[in-house]
Amino acid sequence: MNNKTTKQQKDFIYGRNAVLEAVLNTPNRINKIIISKTSANDAKINEIINLAKNNSIVFQFVPKERFAQYQETAHQGIIAFVSPVPYYDLTDFLDPKKEGYSKIVILDGIEDPHNLGAIIRTAACAGFNAIIIPSRRNAQVNATVEKTSAGAINHIPVIQVNSLSNAIDKLKDNDYWIIAADAHGKDNYFDIDYTDMNFAIIMGGEETGVSKNNMKKSDFIVKIPMLRNFNSLNVSNAACAIIYESLRQNICKARKNSNIANKTK
Amino acid sequence: MNNKTTKQQKDFIYGRNAVLEAVLNTPNRINKIIISKTSANDAKINEIINLAKNNSIVFQFVPKERFAQYQETAHQGIIAFVSPVPYYDLTDFLDPKKEGYSKIVILDGIEDPHNLGAIIRTAACAGFNAIIIPSRRNAQVNATVEKTSAGAINHIPVIQVNSLSNAIDKLKDNDYWIIAADAHGKDNYFDIDYTDMNFAIIMGGEETGVSKNNMKKSDFIVKIPMLRNFNSLNVSNAACAIIYESLRQNICKARKNSNIANKTK
Repeated sequence: MNNKTTKQQKDFIYGRNAVLEAVLNTPNRINKIIISKTSANDAKINEIINLAKNNSIVFQFVPKERFAQYQETAHQGIIAFVSPVPYYDLTDFLDPKKEGYSKIVILDGIEDPHNLGAIIRTAACAGFNAIIIPSRRNAQVNATVEKTSAGAINHIPVIQVNSLSNAIDKLKDNDYWIIAADAHGKDNYFDIDYTDMNFAIIMGGEETGVSKNNMKKSDFIVKIPMLRNFNSLNVSNAACAIIYESLRQNICKARKNSNIANKTK
Repeated sequence: MNNKTTKQQKDFIYGRNAVLEAVLNTPNRINKIIISKTSANDAKINEIINLAKNNSIVFQFVPKERFAQYQETAHQGIIAFVSPVPYYDLTDFLDPKKEGYSKIVILDGIEDPHNLGAIIRTAACAGFNAIIIPSRRNAQVNATVEKTSAGAINHIPVIQVNSLSNAIDKLKDNDYWIIAADAHGKDNYFDIDYTDMNFAIIMGGEETGVSKNNMKKSDFIVKIPMLRNFNSLNVSNAACAIIYESLRQNICKARKNSNIANKTK
């Protein structure tokens, strides 16, 4: 993907849910909304219009022909032109120290923007604190990612780094445990303990997996058990299995601690 | 989707991985393979060609222009024309009784073929026994589904039924427990026990969720905890969280039983 394409793709959000999320959460990012005249009587679009009015966002009804250039996207008759999603800086994220433990997903070579969007969405739902992507050899945040994330991109910081290797070193210096997902991993992903620690889960690219260098730096390499020997999970589903297992363990642990606390009162 | 479109879409498989899976697992379904001359020196395509030769499948190198009509698909220079995926019959599936417990996913109104394909893939990886889809108001198996499933469609039966409601009744008559996934569910999905029973998990459509009637028939309604209040998981990721939790419980239980058996020896 060349820089020009990236720039263009970053500059709009399409579809009713994605635009609604943007109006609700990051109205300052929106420069203008165009709405197809044929979509004018839709409840969700009316909600967007009301929010746009309250936030002094310019919106405009346009003939549906105006959407011809966006026909490859599922725009549903609405597009918001926006400033690009701001990437976060790892140093800023790590400093000052937050309360509680921090959970991160690191993506190492994810090519498909749908997978990137789906992982951002899952990580946000599960209360993770950030996503780290490298600035090269990985999908970057664009319109497809924003749409697939269903607006989650506005709820979780995406940290862009020039070197994943350096980022992992920095995380380790900040008391993070590093967990790489790999088909040849030693432990099943549900056999390690995700509680009472900062951790980062590395998910590798669709074809390439986690790079050897990053695998070497990892404290754990976990696999997802396959009961049929034909292929592996889609990477966003694999990420979901691990992310939600870590959440399950933390919820169960918190519940147990709370029960113990109640009993000793 | 009209019947004609469905018929046409069912009739080809595209992309190297999907075609390779088809040649490996269901060579009898393949009528002919076309390969772009520009893709002739690819390792995976060579593997497909060797398998095609061994299985007496016709293949042909064609100019890349031949792929123009398939440009909307990620065909990677290879297409296999195939007989449609055979749908299975629920009665045939249930009779005769199989050994061990059976695990099924029921889809109730999934619209996006990518989600259907991803769920088929996850269910196959997790060793589930079947997918049930209704013949209307749900994506049907087509080329996009085959591709997204990464060939999993050849490893797990897809049962098509005219009425999900009747299918659920039949499953209950055959000692299946029915588990519906819903954002307003009573229990977290990891708080119910998926071991030592036949069960079917119902996943609802992207916008509509599980229909009220099917929800009423369910023994459990489970939710996936959301730590950020903005939206829900993508349905294929939600399915993955539940499917893999059921697998985790069954693996852990089998391990425990095996430990007990070893100790009492």
